[in-house]
Amino acid sequence: MQISINANRCEPSPMRKFHPLAVAAQKEGKRIFHLNIGQPDLPTPKAFYEAVSSFNARTLEYEASPGMPVLLDAVQKYYKGLDVDLEPNDILITTGGSEALLLTCLSILDPYTEVIIPEPYYPNYTTFVHAAGGVIRALPTNPWEGYRYAKRERIESLITKNTRAILITNPGNPTGVVLNEEEMRMIADVAKEHDLFLICDEVYREFCYDDKFGVPTMARFRDIDENLVIVDSVSKRFSACGARVGCVVTRNKELQQALLKFCQSRLSVATIDQWGAAALYSVGQDFFRECKAEYQRRRDTVIRKLRMIPGVVVEEPMGAFYLMASLPVDDADKFQRWLLEKFNDHGDTVMFAPGAPFYETPGKGINEVRIAYVLKQEDLERAMDVLARGISVYQKQVMKVKPESLN
Amino acid sequence: MQISINANRCEPSPMRKFHPLAVAAQKEGKRIFHLNIGQPDLPTPKAFYEAVSSFNARTLEYEASPGMPVLLDAVQKYYKGLDVDLEPNDILITTGGSEALLLTCLSILDPYTEVIIPEPYYPNYTTFVHAAGGVIRALPTNPWEGYRYAKRERIESLITKNTRAILITNPGNPTGVVLNEEEMRMIADVAKEHDLFLICDEVYREFCYDDKFGVPTMARFRDIDENLVIVDSVSKRFSACGARVGCVVTRNKELQQALLKFCQSRLSVATIDQWGAAALYSVGQDFFRECKAEYQRRRDTVIRKLRMIPGVVVEEPMGAFYLMASLPVDDADKFQRWLLEKFNDHGDTVMFAPGAPFYETPGKGINEVRIAYVLKQEDLERAMDVLARGISVYQKQVMKVKPESLN
Repeated sequence: MQISINANRCEPSPMRKFHPLAVAAQKEGKRIFHLNIGQPDLPTPKAFYEAVSSFNARTLEYEASPGMPVLLDAVQKYYKGLDVDLEPNDILITTGGSEALLLTCLSILDPYTEVIIPEPYYPNYTTFVHAAGGVIRALPTNPWEGYRYAKRERIESLITKNTRAILITNPGNPTGVVLNEEEMRMIADVAKEHDLFLICDEVYREFCYDDKFGVPTMARFRDIDENLVIVDSVSKRFSACGARVGCVVTRNKELQQALLKFCQSRLSVATIDQWGAAALYSVGQDFFRECKAEYQRRRDTVIRKLRMIPGVVVEEPMGAFYLMASLPVDDADKFQRWLLEKFNDHGDTVMFAPGAPFYETPGKGINEVRIAYVLKQEDLERAMDVLARGISVYQKQVMKVKPESLN
Repeated sequence: MQISINANRCEPSPMRKFHPLAVAAQKEGKRIFHLNIGQPDLPTPKAFYEAVSSFNARTLEYEASPGMPVLLDAVQKYYKGLDVDLEPNDILITTGGSEALLLTCLSILDPYTEVIIPEPYYPNYTTFVHAAGGVIRALPTNPWEGYRYAKRERIESLITKNTRAILITNPGNPTGVVLNEEEMRMIADVAKEHDLFLICDEVYREFCYDDKFGVPTMARFRDIDENLVIVDSVSKRFSACGARVGCVVTRNKELQQALLKFCQSRLSVATIDQWGAAALYSVGQDFFRECKAEYQRRRDTVIRKLRMIPGVVVEEPMGAFYLMASLPVDDADKFQRWLLEKFNDHGDTVMFAPGAPFYETPGKGINEVRIAYVLKQEDLERAMDVLARGISVYQKQVMKVKPESLN
């Protein structure tokens, strides 16, 4: 028996690979601050649970394959509020943004075709692209440029006759980079001029920490209707990751038909979660404002504390709730393992996502980490102190750095 | 922009393609008896709704990628009750049996590799196999043999150096065929001798209408641990299709690792549905007994009525809640369209799934249909009368059959 080539091309999740070590550390009594997973801790709106409790159909039936009508309607209205007009057929409800991405890749990629993705990127993109036999062409960025990737020449230099799509996350995971209007327009132009799909993962759209960005979406550019595929989800927007409700939005009719065939094959998305998700869309603007303000305070805390650690390179992220930082260690993966196995500061340690798996290019990101600032203020403060202490001890004990060479 | 070759190789769902015509017919005031979709009408156990209503975590979080521990535990205990010992790692919770099948295909199929499937088969298998670039090699059966497929020579004659797996549904959808112990053993032997994966979709396991079958599962054969992949689901077992909770069971460690990578990439299955599904496994044997007795009565009704229609060829199905029948019409697809657009009997009409898409071999199944007996007795009686009347009118009006040629 043989495992498929494409399965062998995929890697275990870097966010989840240290889980067994974390379990062992907790058994030893260590407290771990989890900055490794983008699991918001803010409360899910009660509207979700109320809707779910009120659902009492005698038989829990399959829903329609494209999605529950009441949810499709709620999503359509939500986009209308962003000045985006959608037809009902433009929306397909999916099991989280994850399924939206997988089905999009299966719909547009053939083996050996290419997708351009700015690196560092969300590592699960690798699995979705590889599942379809595709190849990632990494658009390089640098910590000292704040990971900004919207450079026309760099993007165009990667386009070949096998390129099928450009895939971006805006606001960005793991970098927190947000495109400005001009950059969005440029990328839309490149996709249009070169006849490429433009896949925009916009699940963090509500989390932009500068008013100039508003609530960004590529869906307002109507001249790229044929190119654009929006990936969306309730997970981060409403702190409802466990609902596994997302959607894919495209006005390209041929792609709609392809996606629909895959949606029909898996019958439907979970019924009560769709019902609950429809209720989520009834929460008002106050909810978004409060969430955003809370994440902004957290970002400010993490940035302030990180900048106090000698040798850390970090730019202030403009959106989402992640940042990439370069740490003064030899290898972030090794450092993470050490933090779990050998280190504690008064019983505390910390987890982040080591940076290398966020890169396609070998050798990049080795001393970088992704930090998800999804803990409350006081925990973040403490987590950063533990990290600072950890770096200092690691440098001395493992890297054998002489005290005088550290400033 | 280009749609992928594999997406183009997939077809819209034959169970769902007449949906727009059905909507139009209902607008005209017609009542439609739906025998086209395997959506049970029996009530979902209250345990599901009670569990779901009691779920009140402040934040609805992602679950672990392999599944919620309490559900994994419930599934393990359920298998123990079938005399099947499983390790926790042998089980991965999936979004319905559908995701179990898609991820299995992505894990074991490369482009142009082959899967042997007895035809007629569940048409969504085509999408799962094609998504991975695979090719279906159909194992032929016949209505006059009751669609039985467990013939060693026929199976072995289809094996090539590109064959990766045999995929069976037991009890069968759409045929209702149940393998006896000897047939199961033979197929297990063939998989083992030829180093093939054996994918057994056993979601209808509890629905066998002859005590000699018991609750069949291939998982009791411990000599095929490396070959076997069980696809399972709560959908039919507990009339809970809308929960979208299933699992894939395999003791093949390499396959477990491959599947886990795909599971990690989509993060987790919906949290409250897993919680509800765990509660479902607490319902007792009485529940299964009552469901089975009800479906058995329905089967008997449909078979009795179908046999009264001149020209219908049908064998009594031994399991699941489907049957394939050959109708005395020229083209079941055309007949279905006519039933929705042109026909009614006192305002009633009927839907089934036309047979051709259940076959890989062109030209087969054209006058066959799949009937799902998922309606209550009196509705089934009436539906069969409407079908009988429909056939008679169609033969005269559309096929222009002369009355004397009909017996």
